[in-house]
Amino acid sequence: MPQPDHVSALRVADPTDLDDDLKAAYAKCVEKLGFVPNVLRAYSLRPQKLRNFMAMYNELMLAPSGLSKLEREMVAVVVSAANRCYYCLVAHGQAVRKISGDAELGEMMALNYRVAKLDRRQRAMLDFAWKLTQTPNDVGDADRGALREVGLSDADIFDLAETIAFFNLSNRMAYALDMMPNREYHRLDR
Amino acid sequence: MPQPDHVSALRVADPTDLDDDLKAAYAKCVEKLGFVPNVLRAYSLRPQKLRNFMAMYNELMLAPSGLSKLEREMVAVVVSAANRCYYCLVAHGQAVRKISGDAELGEMMALNYRVAKLDRRQRAMLDFAWKLTQTPNDVGDADRGALREVGLSDADIFDLAETIAFFNLSNRMAYALDMMPNREYHRLDR
Amino acid sequence: MPQPDHVSALRVADPTDLDDDLKAAYAKCVEKLGFVPNVLRAYSLRPQKLRNFMAMYNELMLAPSGLSKLEREMVAVVVSAANRCYYCLVAHGQAVRKISGDAELGEMMALNYRVAKLDRRQRAMLDFAWKLTQTPNDVGDADRGALREVGLSDADIFDLAETIAFFNLSNRMAYALDMMPNREYHRLDR
Amino acid sequence: MPQPDHVSALRVADPTDLDDDLKAAYAKCVEKLGFVPNVLRAYSLRPQKLRNFMAMYNELMLAPSGLSKLEREMVAVVVSAANRCYYCLVAHGQAVRKISGDAELGEMMALNYRVAKLDRRQRAMLDFAWKLTQTPNDVGDADRGALREVGLSDADIFDLAETIAFFNLSNRMAYALDMMPNREYHRLDR
Amino acid sequence: MPQPDHVSALRVADPTDLDDDLKAAYAKCVEKLGFVPNVLRAYSLRPQKLRNFMAMYNELMLAPSGLSKLEREMVAVVVSAANRCYYCLVAHGQAVRKISGDAELGEMMALNYRVAKLDRRQRAMLDFAWKLTQTPNDVGDADRGALREVGLSDADIFDLAETIAFFNLSNRMAYALDMMPNREYHRLDR
Amino acid sequence: MPQPDHVSALRVADPTDLDDDLKAAYAKCVEKLGFVPNVLRAYSLRPQKLRNFMAMYNELMLAPSGLSKLEREMVAVVVSAANRCYYCLVAHGQAVRKISGDAELGEMMALNYRVAKLDRRQRAMLDFAWKLTQTPNDVGDADRGALREVGLSDADIFDLAETIAFFNLSNRMAYALDMMPNREYHRLDR
Repeated sequence: MPQPDHVSALRVADPTDLDDDLKAAYAKCVEKLGFVPNVLRAYSLRPQKLRNFMAMYNELMLAPSGLSKLEREMVAVVVSAANRCYYCLVAHGQAVRKISGDAELGEMMALNYRVAKLDRRQRAMLDFAWKLTQTPNDVGDADRGALREVGLSDADIFDLAETIAFFNLSNRMAYALDMMPNREYHRLDR
Repeated sequence: MPQPDHVSALRVADPTDLDDDLKAAYAKCVEKLGFVPNVLRAYSLRPQKLRNFMAMYNELMLAPSGLSKLEREMVAVVVSAANRCYYCLVAHGQAVRKISGDAELGEMMALNYRVAKLDRRQRAMLDFAWKLTQTPNDVGDADRGALREVGLSDADIFDLAETIAFFNLSNRMAYALDMMPNREYHRLDR
Repeated sequence: MPQPDHVSALRVADPTDLDDDLKAAYAKCVEKLGFVPNVLRAYSLRPQKLRNFMAMYNELMLAPSGLSKLEREMVAVVVSAANRCYYCLVAHGQAVRKISGDAELGEMMALNYRVAKLDRRQRAMLDFAWKLTQTPNDVGDADRGALREVGLSDADIFDLAETIAFFNLSNRMAYALDMMPNREYHRLDR
Repeated sequence: MPQPDHVSALRVADPTDLDDDLKAAYAKCVEKLGFVPNVLRAYSLRPQKLRNFMAMYNELMLAPSGLSKLEREMVAVVVSAANRCYYCLVAHGQAVRKISGDAELGEMMALNYRVAKLDRRQRAMLDFAWKLTQTPNDVGDADRGALREVGLSDADIFDLAETIAFFNLSNRMAYALDMMPNREYHRLDR
Repeated sequence: MPQPDHVSALRVADPTDLDDDLKAAYAKCVEKLGFVPNVLRAYSLRPQKLRNFMAMYNELMLAPSGLSKLEREMVAVVVSAANRCYYCLVAHGQAVRKISGDAELGEMMALNYRVAKLDRRQRAMLDFAWKLTQTPNDVGDADRGALREVGLSDADIFDLAETIAFFNLSNRMAYALDMMPNREYHRLDR
Repeated sequence: MPQPDHVSALRVADPTDLDDDLKAAYAKCVEKLGFVPNVLRAYSLRPQKLRNFMAMYNELMLAPSGLSKLEREMVAVVVSAANRCYYCLVAHGQAVRKISGDAELGEMMALNYRVAKLDRRQRAMLDFAWKLTQTPNDVGDADRGALREVGLSDADIFDLAETIAFFNLSNRMAYALDMMPNREYHRLDR
């Protein structure tokens, strides 16, 4: 499959020049996904920063948490929709489709999460994601209260907040570097 | 000095319960700064996330880079001003005062960076920080071009972008958790 | 295929009660698309308004024009993306996929048209669509000039303007009535 | 009375070249109003689109509806005020003055409808018009509920929604073509 | 002529209780205009503040300046349009009609000044008024340069700036007190 | 102490050329503050306007009122924070520090007043200041009601409103003239 004309507007490291741990990380991606996500290739310009990014990402999206993996991916997509970040919408929209087995749910998260029929817990999490992304200065005790009301513990609120915050970071990296997603995402899990 | 009535709106770990590596990190802060920054105490609710946060922060703000430490702190403050994040404005405003030895420069970064008499390179970096924070969807090739014109390399643009992106993350953590800064910052380097 | 739990937040006419011309219009949709688009069912509450809507739509999207059918559908999607209108993004995103044979182009139009590699003419049309939708008060002679520069005639500018204006109408009808698109769109032309 | 220096930024058809049905439509305007509204002259560049526009307009503003003609004109003006559309404010501001016999009511609709002393039904309709125009993504069940509470039926809500949507269309056509209203409107019904 | 149901949402002084200088000021208004502008009655709750307001207003709008009285009134209306201030639009819209003898010019200033055919000097002043009102943080040397290019001296720029600034004050007083204009304004100079 | 490279982007009167009353006003400032505030020097280009500005300012900030001097200064800083006005934030931030004897309170007002632990009365006044500054068109009876509920009289609401309105004026003068504050403010009352 022909790839986009660029991965990043900045220089990208030659994979053969990477340190062994990063080569191993790339190999693990190929094994699991079939390809190396372009965000990693874009980050390879600064290898230590790539390591930190992967560590934070893996903990946030894959480690044990009161939030399910699907919930974390839904949050990722809604934050990216608020910011209109093409890279993250494509990559994490696919993740929502895959984990949920519901292609329409992925579309709804990417296009306008408010049309989805969600339970109160998920809706509250996504409303918080939208607000903390768009108007963080308006977030206050009432918003944390709304999360507690649908059952989130302190640790859950922390994990939700950091997921939202992290995609505000990665959306801006995607814009700053004009990252383009691997074309494989489009075809998967439709 | 009496501290604010809370560090975080969420629960905070008892320092005596932390793993040894985190106890050591706290001790190092006390040694260098005289206190443990409240952001670390707020993050201690989720120890692995605290480790990742510190790793990313230390690499970004302290590791070798084409951007000086002062430039990175100026970017931190301007992003936090755009987002009106009290915690980060207080903590990193102090850092600008300390590194630059210029208390007014710290005030200008926190209140309105456009009034400062800066060289073209610094002004371009701060304009990029403001735009990537406020209207990321409008960032394009012309903005990267403006950074190259004042001498930034690809690696410099990467480091600048990730600094901006990181404070968009940490500002949102501060809002989500209602983090309050240690009162010591106010008195330092005036 | 199970349909969404509602077509419109308002009452919808029983198809067997419709006048013959509208029954024929429904039948024609089933013949061509396999189903009656929910927007028509939502409009059937007010039959004469349905006739006018179909007449305007058909002229705008299907009649001869200096704008290709693909260009008109791209404009429809970009306007709907600006307004975050789920119904129109789903229905016209599918049309872009079908006419272009390029599923990614449909995604780009729906998520962020600025990442697409377009010729200057198409880019100018979509920039105009975004601006006339989001900040109409800022549209002026320079914007019309930019369209003329890429070869649009007066009639082409008119057709472009009315396409943009029409989807600002239909996006608002979709929001006001909470219209849900037929689920068939999701599966088509991936 | 000298007319503005242009009717539209685009070419306008010579009235003597129009098809007979359009000539008749022009003649009817002259008979009723004393002049041909410039919006029709601007649309005459694309005759079939002019026919569709007139059909939709006449049904919406003049056909039987649960909304009075004055209410529809008030909605037209408030939408146009939100969009700051000079053409529609002048033309429909005059209509409000004429139908209501209250010149100040016309001014209030055009300048800031919130200062007018209206009954609850009219205020609810205008609040809905403002919101559906400015922030359609925030319209939800509560907004439809507020309309039902003041007595609007499903058909009334439909007619209100389409009136709002239509002026979002026509405001954008006025901006895109830089339409100037006939000067006669200014003098009428003061 | 029946007056609006209130002058201000706050208490208003009984005119017979006012100090002699303020009684004289009221009398002068009646002599010149036929009535006491409601803004003065609203301000009479705080007599010394009324004196200061009148002094600033009279100097700004009536004293010798490089800006003509019509230009100052045009600025007043454009600022008030940006802020959608009903009181000031009604009162100063009438002033533009009276001084210019051009009722349409008054309408254009109140509804959308960009449609008016103005000389470059007036257009530059009104563009500055719009920007300083809506996005003051974006005003910079280039904006002052644009005023100098059309012939404004330092004193002219000062007078322009203070006129804009003053109506940002008075628009907010009108909103805060819900001031309603005297109904006489509507009828005058049409 | 070296002063900023400019006081105003416009010409400033030579103090020795001023009328005696203005010379006396300057002398009084030097006596009380140790320097002439740059806003007065910037205004000296137009002496009568300087007189009016000082009269309004002195009445508003220093005359008897139901609002304490500290409350008035807190309002001044919060309005200036909303508008990001460097001059007024520096000058009135110092005033809050001085009157309250609480340097952190000054920082909170300048950076984000919502983090401060205030009594209900002060919080209500500052919320009103933010709203009347940022979205005056949304201010209504409910907002005045909220002020009455915390004990403000009609005269108090008037004084609060005019303080807010006045700093919307002076913030815009500072932007229009690019006024720079005297450097002495930075050092005082830390």
